[in-house]
Amino acid sequence: MSKTVEFFYDFTSPTAYLAWARLPAIAQRTGATIRYRPMFLGGVMQATGNRPPGTLPQKGAWMAADLARWAKRFNTPYKPNPHFPMMTLMVQRAAQEWIDRPDFDSYLAAIFNAAWRDQKNIADKAVLTEVLTTAGFSPEAFFAATENPANKEKLKATTDEAVARGVFGAPTFFVDGEMHFGQDRLDFVEEALMRA
Amino acid sequence: MSKTVEFFYDFTSPTAYLAWARLPAIAQRTGATIRYRPMFLGGVMQATGNRPPGTLPQKGAWMAADLARWAKRFNTPYKPNPHFPMMTLMVQRAAQEWIDRPDFDSYLAAIFNAAWRDQKNIADKAVLTEVLTTAGFSPEAFFAATENPANKEKLKATTDEAVARGVFGAPTFFVDGEMHFGQDRLDFVEEALMRA
Repeated sequence: MSKTVEFFYDFTSPTAYLAWARLPAIAQRTGATIRYRPMFLGGVMQATGNRPPGTLPQKGAWMAADLARWAKRFNTPYKPNPHFPMMTLMVQRAAQEWIDRPDFDSYLAAIFNAAWRDQKNIADKAVLTEVLTTAGFSPEAFFAATENPANKEKLKATTDEAVARGVFGAPTFFVDGEMHFGQDRLDFVEEALMRA
Repeated sequence: MSKTVEFFYDFTSPTAYLAWARLPAIAQRTGATIRYRPMFLGGVMQATGNRPPGTLPQKGAWMAADLARWAKRFNTPYKPNPHFPMMTLMVQRAAQEWIDRPDFDSYLAAIFNAAWRDQKNIADKAVLTEVLTTAGFSPEAFFAATENPANKEKLKATTDEAVARGVFGAPTFFVDGEMHFGQDRLDFVEEALMRA
């Protein structure tokens, strides 16, 4: 049985972006498979009563500086996004359908980079059309996927599963039933994968 | 000018305990001085609108496991305290007076270890009497210090200063005006001290 790290994420989360950028190298070093679990963070927050860190202005100010330090440490291109928080229902519903396609990694890269490298509003249809076209995806297929009831159901099911398993924010990782919260816990994730 | 790390803490915080245990080695490696800043975390929470992480049961559950992992990583004896959260006005008021004494380090160790190594209720007068006596301190001098209006004023001033400088939780560190929050940011603190 191959070892797996489950990665519960939402594109609206800058810490999920930083984690996404680092995960492939961790998976490679440990011989693990990444199982991407696109969830709707707004739903997780509502279900658990959690609030975005920036709800507290002092915490938001510290976190802005902290994120820049993490990005610098791992050499990840990162800038705050003036459109944050972004409504991610469209990009996460489409993710449910595309997750089994061979170009899912390109989709992840296109949306994460648009949000956190290029400061684009990934909730805006015109912006998404441009981003997806540039990345070689069909915007028509994308918008059809966002309206597909099966994808809406899958996103809700993943979000419900996350909450049921104890997830309260993003990014959250599971290795062998052990849960880790935050991009700043990726070393614990790597240690867990080495033990797995 | 010698380099300094300011350490804003409260004995009620298990993450402040983990930071306290690691700070001296970091100070030694970087040639820095630790400036202990005992504040009243309850006042910081109230002033900023912050809530303890455990307010969210899911976050509390993850944090319990996370704290155990950090303690294990740095070989710090640690157990959750059934009396948490503890009212720390007494121990923090006395800290204001004892901070300039040569045995302040022993005071820090006595109270932090009582709370987070030995699971004692550091808000209880009988418990404190025993802890302080064992550590070679006079309980009478301690309780007098807790009632001294000058110490009450100093604790309030330190807490107000913390809030004014952007502190929203514990532990919080300042190096050259750069603020770091959390025991999990001590590597950033050490890097800042190496640059300082």
